[in-house]
Amino acid sequence: MFNYKVIGNILGILLLINGGFMLLCLPVSLYFWETEWLSIAISSGITVSVGFLLRFLTRNNKNKDLKKKDGYLIVTAGWIFMSFFGALPYLISGAIPSFTNAFFETVSGYTTTGASILTDIEAVSKGILFWRSLTQWIGGMGIIVLALAILPFLGIGGMQLFVAEAPGITPDKLQPRIQETAKRLWFIYFGLTVTEAILLYFAGMTPYDAMNHSLTTMATGGFSTMNASLAGQSPAIQYIVIVFMFLAGTSFTLTYFALKRNFTKVIRNEEFVVYTLFTLVITLIVTITLLVVTESSFEASFRDALFQVVSIITTTGFVSADYTSWAPFLSVLFFILLFVGGSAGSTAGGVKVIRHVVLFKNSFLELKRQLHPSAVIPVRISGKAMEQNIVYNVLAFIMIYILVFLVGVTLLSSMNVDFDTAFGAVATSLGNVGPGIGDVGPVDNFSAMPMGGKWLLGFLMLLGRLELFTVLMLLSPYFWKKR
Amino acid sequence: MFNYKVIGNILGILLLINGGFMLLCLPVSLYFWETEWLSIAISSGITVSVGFLLRFLTRNNKNKDLKKKDGYLIVTAGWIFMSFFGALPYLISGAIPSFTNAFFETVSGYTTTGASILTDIEAVSKGILFWRSLTQWIGGMGIIVLALAILPFLGIGGMQLFVAEAPGITPDKLQPRIQETAKRLWFIYFGLTVTEAILLYFAGMTPYDAMNHSLTTMATGGFSTMNASLAGQSPAIQYIVIVFMFLAGTSFTLTYFALKRNFTKVIRNEEFVVYTLFTLVITLIVTITLLVVTESSFEASFRDALFQVVSIITTTGFVSADYTSWAPFLSVLFFILLFVGGSAGSTAGGVKVIRHVVLFKNSFLELKRQLHPSAVIPVRISGKAMEQNIVYNVLAFIMIYILVFLVGVTLLSSMNVDFDTAFGAVATSLGNVGPGIGDVGPVDNFSAMPMGGKWLLGFLMLLGRLELFTVLMLLSPYFWKKR
Repeated sequence: MFNYKVIGNILGILLLINGGFMLLCLPVSLYFWETEWLSIAISSGITVSVGFLLRFLTRNNKNKDLKKKDGYLIVTAGWIFMSFFGALPYLISGAIPSFTNAFFETVSGYTTTGASILTDIEAVSKGILFWRSLTQWIGGMGIIVLALAILPFLGIGGMQLFVAEAPGITPDKLQPRIQETAKRLWFIYFGLTVTEAILLYFAGMTPYDAMNHSLTTMATGGFSTMNASLAGQSPAIQYIVIVFMFLAGTSFTLTYFALKRNFTKVIRNEEFVVYTLFTLVITLIVTITLLVVTESSFEASFRDALFQVVSIITTTGFVSADYTSWAPFLSVLFFILLFVGGSAGSTAGGVKVIRHVVLFKNSFLELKRQLHPSAVIPVRISGKAMEQNIVYNVLAFIMIYILVFLVGVTLLSSMNVDFDTAFGAVATSLGNVGPGIGDVGPVDNFSAMPMGGKWLLGFLMLLGRLELFTVLMLLSPYFWKKR
Repeated sequence: MFNYKVIGNILGILLLINGGFMLLCLPVSLYFWETEWLSIAISSGITVSVGFLLRFLTRNNKNKDLKKKDGYLIVTAGWIFMSFFGALPYLISGAIPSFTNAFFETVSGYTTTGASILTDIEAVSKGILFWRSLTQWIGGMGIIVLALAILPFLGIGGMQLFVAEAPGITPDKLQPRIQETAKRLWFIYFGLTVTEAILLYFAGMTPYDAMNHSLTTMATGGFSTMNASLAGQSPAIQYIVIVFMFLAGTSFTLTYFALKRNFTKVIRNEEFVVYTLFTLVITLIVTITLLVVTESSFEASFRDALFQVVSIITTTGFVSADYTSWAPFLSVLFFILLFVGGSAGSTAGGVKVIRHVVLFKNSFLELKRQLHPSAVIPVRISGKAMEQNIVYNVLAFIMIYILVFLVGVTLLSSMNVDFDTAFGAVATSLGNVGPGIGDVGPVDNFSAMPMGGKWLLGFLMLLGRLELFTVLMLLSPYFWKKR
């Protein structure tokens, strides 16, 4: 029923890539004279060997056809496989001795979430922390190709919308140019990462910190090499990070158009306009609140507000100030922001701005439909009428998102986690953000979560990252029926 | 554009009914030798006079046609009008001197919510408390006719579903028999109220308490004449209240069929089956949790669990134990239960079970639709395929419900209300339940809410009670367009 050989082959390729990236940590570790270089080398060796083995076992596949069902399996299995092997450097070096914690940290990496169980990040060796940052960057690469090619192929949650806009792709002629497009967007991803690293270096960061932070910014990941995240850094550094977080939460397709100087495409993109305006309006509200409740200057208030708002909306999760300490109102506001998500086609997780736009428009149009029951009143995005079945799919996505959220909160609270913390931890995991509220707020970490809770949250990160349907499909009876 | 004369005339009738009901409190007040009888008489006099005046001013209406838009206006204006005049007994007697508080208590009454600002209920005179219970019972009467006739006419949120099942009504021939059907259901409502009062009396309540509690049970209101609500009452009394809360949360149409011994109709009603099973499953979970965390007997744990679960699911809001003190898990669970709501066609508020059924079925069918994009896969309720536009309407309803909830929480928390309390207060108000979590938990009241918060919560009660669309329609630009 499934084309296991092709699936195994692709998983093998993923492991080879993974093992290859691990090798990049070797020079870092050696440069800093750390003994962990050996653990990294062994991890890479194991990963690459298993990858080769998988490819060897699946070498004779004449039938290279991939069906839809194979697609679902590859995506979920791929992310889980990567996470198991990605945990090896932590486990073998002893940086994170517990398997649960190591797996949590790795899943949090590949899903670009950024929730951490490390209580003292700076005590971990630099080679291992570089691997930690790399897991997010690899995750980001995966997301780009996922959003570009795989999700639309599987027909998930309005991703067709995004694809129709991608350069060189027409919905009915997806396959031929997909590789070229993916390469183009990866190039932008790579280019922006390098640019940010250089800028951060010139703003005063060490080359090592600059590299790490740019890797995790562009992935909207949010792992930092510093215990305080980006709190206490210079305004210049914070503004640079803000700009690149915002770019990382923007559709890479749009960035491509912007680089081609096709600005009308950018300005006419409804999701981008809403994403920008929403960020500004919320920042304004938070700034005003900060001016009222704290004694900071306007610039500091604005910067704190902008940083935190952009960090949460783009699902990055860097922290420059503790939003939960400001006012109860802001805890609620930031909790709600955990559900926003960046733009479709970016590396951001969560619901995504475009889905919220569809939701809002459809909800208000329903009032109009009620007054004129016989009229056909479609949702229009960027001026074009949307097919009803896509609207349906988007609504179902958001509904399932909320259901999964509530089930997650119930399960986590049954493990004796309090109300705020359960709400915050589940929302931030499902949305791939990082920090939450309560005991998993911006200045806390996930080390105190119960063991069962860590597995639950890891699963939710995966669910959120893979746009729910991909994972849930595997759990549905429809999927395993012969025909 | 609107038929103001007919609208005014109907509002006049509503006030006459309201004033008439106030007179019922006179004998109660006189029986207990209370001086408040005068305040009640004056309130009734004012209300009846204004009612007559309104009818007099609108007496010459030749055009008796009511259009859809008039319907929206009547429903919202009616509930608000009633609430203003219903607050008179509190204000004139001085039982609740502040206008904000008196209005809050009255809206909470007519919307059958049951949230109270009274800190010492037993200090209030019996005539006034009887009026308080009556406001809920009147609200319940209003809801029955609303669900039966008005909401389906306006095409709101799947209410068509319920109506197609009502006795003596066929969807295309609504008008002729509607009065008869309404009378029939009101008779059941009245009969159940009297039955419960008699049973409570025989179980040991005073006639006065028995009357009050039966009035507010059948309305799924939950106002009690005792500070402790029903905590500390005998098991017999608690079980009686449980049974009648459950009946009040069941479609009155189904009760009608049951009384006609047409039990197959009841058993084949999918909403009723889900409502019953869901109540039992949640009760079981809560009972087990109670057995683990407390040292109560099985019977006491089961009774406490069943009482609280039925009270919240049916949106009644009576309390026999403090669910927020049991375990953090149960705070989360009961918070989620605030969103369930009883059956459509009952006096219960909230989202309603049938809408949840549609939501769940549609969400999971979406997975199937993704695997078979060209197949038409409808949602089936009680074996019948549902029209797609009704599914759409139900989904939009739930989405708007969630949006309104989030906006409410944000606004309330901006008034310095903490996270749990804001979540609990908004959920319980919008769902017309009564108790929430945090500072508005089962053993607390709403007196400490900020003034702005009371107006906000009162508005949310109205919004929830009138199924959102009715009120929101008045705020939409579509409504006020000439054509």
